[in-house]
Amino acid sequence: MNAKDILLKAVQCDKEGRILEAQNLYQDGIQLLMDVVSGETDKAKNRVYMERIKEYIDRAEQIKLRVQRHMESGEIVASIPIDENSTGHSYKSLFGKYLNGDVKEILLDEPYLTERYQFQNFIALLELAVKQCKKLKYVRLVTKPDPKNPAGQESILRQIKDDLLQRNITLAVKFEPSLHDRKIILSNGYIIKIGRGLHFFKPTNPLYSLGLCDYDFRNCLQTDVDICRTKTFS
Amino acid sequence: MNAKDILLKAVQCDKEGRILEAQNLYQDGIQLLMDVVSGETDKAKNRVYMERIKEYIDRAEQIKLRVQRHMESGEIVASIPIDENSTGHSYKSLFGKYLNGDVKEILLDEPYLTERYQFQNFIALLELAVKQCKKLKYVRLVTKPDPKNPAGQESILRQIKDDLLQRNITLAVKFEPSLHDRKIILSNGYIIKIGRGLHFFKPTNPLYSLGLCDYDFRNCLQTDVDICRTKTFS
Repeated sequence: MNAKDILLKAVQCDKEGRILEAQNLYQDGIQLLMDVVSGETDKAKNRVYMERIKEYIDRAEQIKLRVQRHMESGEIVASIPIDENSTGHSYKSLFGKYLNGDVKEILLDEPYLTERYQFQNFIALLELAVKQCKKLKYVRLVTKPDPKNPAGQESILRQIKDDLLQRNITLAVKFEPSLHDRKIILSNGYIIKIGRGLHFFKPTNPLYSLGLCDYDFRNCLQTDVDICRTKTFS
Repeated sequence: MNAKDILLKAVQCDKEGRILEAQNLYQDGIQLLMDVVSGETDKAKNRVYMERIKEYIDRAEQIKLRVQRHMESGEIVASIPIDENSTGHSYKSLFGKYLNGDVKEILLDEPYLTERYQFQNFIALLELAVKQCKKLKYVRLVTKPDPKNPAGQESILRQIKDDLLQRNITLAVKFEPSLHDRKIILSNGYIIKIGRGLHFFKPTNPLYSLGLCDYDFRNCLQTDVDICRTKTFS
């Protein structure tokens, strides 16, 4: 897509309340417009471009602020302590009811996505979201790059992205080497914070025992889950 | 346990309607009593033993007949065709509603349990049963022995057995080299027959895509599911 199409799509997403996707599109569009400007010698044209760029930067900034405020102004609706070796804490059991038909966008900050079981946890969350959030259109994942095998990590994430795209859901991945905090932000106004992020399940031991498929049977690591409600993004 | 304890337990299970477990216990107890008889020289004592043995053999035979009749006299309550590459056919979606609080015993005829994914399917079925059948006490699995690695197969089944025992559920395994038909018989009167048995899910491709954990997202192989209702065993 060229800058114009991307920015048109950004405005459309913005109108439909898919603001995370809009924010990403604004950023991509701005980058492309910048490239156009740097190759353009006509000063009058450049002035028009620059005005446009400023406009889109402002809009992307507004969205960023809105999401930030959204995260700060929440009231806690549930605090769930997960005890060491306790069971019954699949994602569905823990916070499935908040992943409902109103969710259009999900923002996931999960620093660790490099091991097989970590990708599996990510898939389990996506399966729950796709099943329950019928209007889901956009997932933004922020994670740390794999220092050992960045190409492998990117390849798996690309596979997941292609899979979601077949269901008309866009997965945008952003790598942040210094990311620490974990959270799941839903566009219906709920924020789920788990101390350990997605990875609080112990492996089944021995391998073939209950819990291999249904995570409600898995023993857990100790962690705390806080669920906040704020206003919806949009 | 000695013969007396086993047979006492058999009678108790029989009274509680756990007749598959009772049948197994009668058979084990009869075997042990036979051993006692063969080592006993007192003819009067042996006569008493033999009467007892006959009594238990009759009872075990009655149970066998009852289960057989149970399987013959069903009416079909649902016929579900599964199309090639269709989705939405996890065990829960297909027949979860029949695995309810009335089920005390399950008999599973599944010829193929040797590959990793096959054990995983078996675990998925057990997870569903344990979650939904709160009174479940006994599962009898009939399967073909693994011609290549019988020790490996037995070892995995022993692990699963130990795991279920911690939940007060007995898993009895019977190997039948000539087994072909697949079925799941529930003691609440439902029989689930799937042409391909438990193994009608295609693997995810690529590995990391939706369906890795939630089988509702898996593409399926073509097969048919028939669900019959008969009287309860007990």
